[in-house]
Amino acid sequence: MRLPAPIPVAAVLATAFTAGAWAQVKPEDAIEYRKSVFTVVKWDFGPMAAMVKGKIPFDAMQFSAHANRVANMAPRALEGFIPGTDEGDTRAKPEIWTDWDTFESRMQTFVDHSARLAALAGEGDEAAIKKQFGETGKACKACHDDFRED
Amino acid sequence: MRLPAPIPVAAVLATAFTAGAWAQVKPEDAIEYRKSVFTVVKWDFGPMAAMVKGKIPFDAMQFSAHANRVANMAPRALEGFIPGTDEGDTRAKPEIWTDWDTFESRMQTFVDHSARLAALAGEGDEAAIKKQFGETGKACKACHDDFRED
Repeated sequence: MRLPAPIPVAAVLATAFTAGAWAQVKPEDAIEYRKSVFTVVKWDFGPMAAMVKGKIPFDAMQFSAHANRVANMAPRALEGFIPGTDEGDTRAKPEIWTDWDTFESRMQTFVDHSARLAALAGEGDEAAIKKQFGETGKACKACHDDFRED
Repeated sequence: MRLPAPIPVAAVLATAFTAGAWAQVKPEDAIEYRKSVFTVVKWDFGPMAAMVKGKIPFDAMQFSAHANRVANMAPRALEGFIPGTDEGDTRAKPEIWTDWDTFESRMQTFVDHSARLAALAGEGDEAAIKKQFGETGKACKACHDDFRED
């Protein structure tokens, strides 16, 4: 069975939301937003991780749906790191803003790996999917290690 | 210019995530998840409301992108109202579970109006879009009034 391809709208949206539209956003709202984006991503990561670890049966259709949802959420995260959000109820490290290029690059790696996972999940090769899930998880960790307080 | 149509994947996903997959989910995580879904929805509602109220210029492409994002998030909300989530860090009223059919129907109304808004946003009739934005906001309020603590 051919599963749905990842929704290509993510790239469009990442371009659509530029700084101008968010000029009126309060820093605390942006912090809450980005944390919410990560919570939603985690919600879909859970069942995929359980399938990869064999805790629940691998279900290609469910995996694909979760992977697509993550691929669609991933580009949102960066939107929440607007100026003024380095302080407040956040575990974001100052290095995000002092080394923005590296941070942005790491976030893009997460976006790219998520998109790749969604694409592979639609092709149904379980081994390849599981390997790519690992790569996506590494992309999360690489950013957390350097840019998030424990 | 023809803007992107709403992504029809929402209906598929709403079907894909049934109770079984979430059997291992902790109630507190489901509560955090649903609150995060609403936070993400609010993030996209803000700029649309600002455009409808004339606080910022109406931008059809931006509006359409926000409306599509809301339409894609909307079906997620119900997933977080799993058994055991009536208590905890939540403003959810007990009536959600004692009158589940009404609650579910209200949530579906929100899903339907969001999808309709995304569809209209792709057609570019500003007056129709603004009217439908109002209807979508009413769908939010109808549920908040009866099922959420102030």
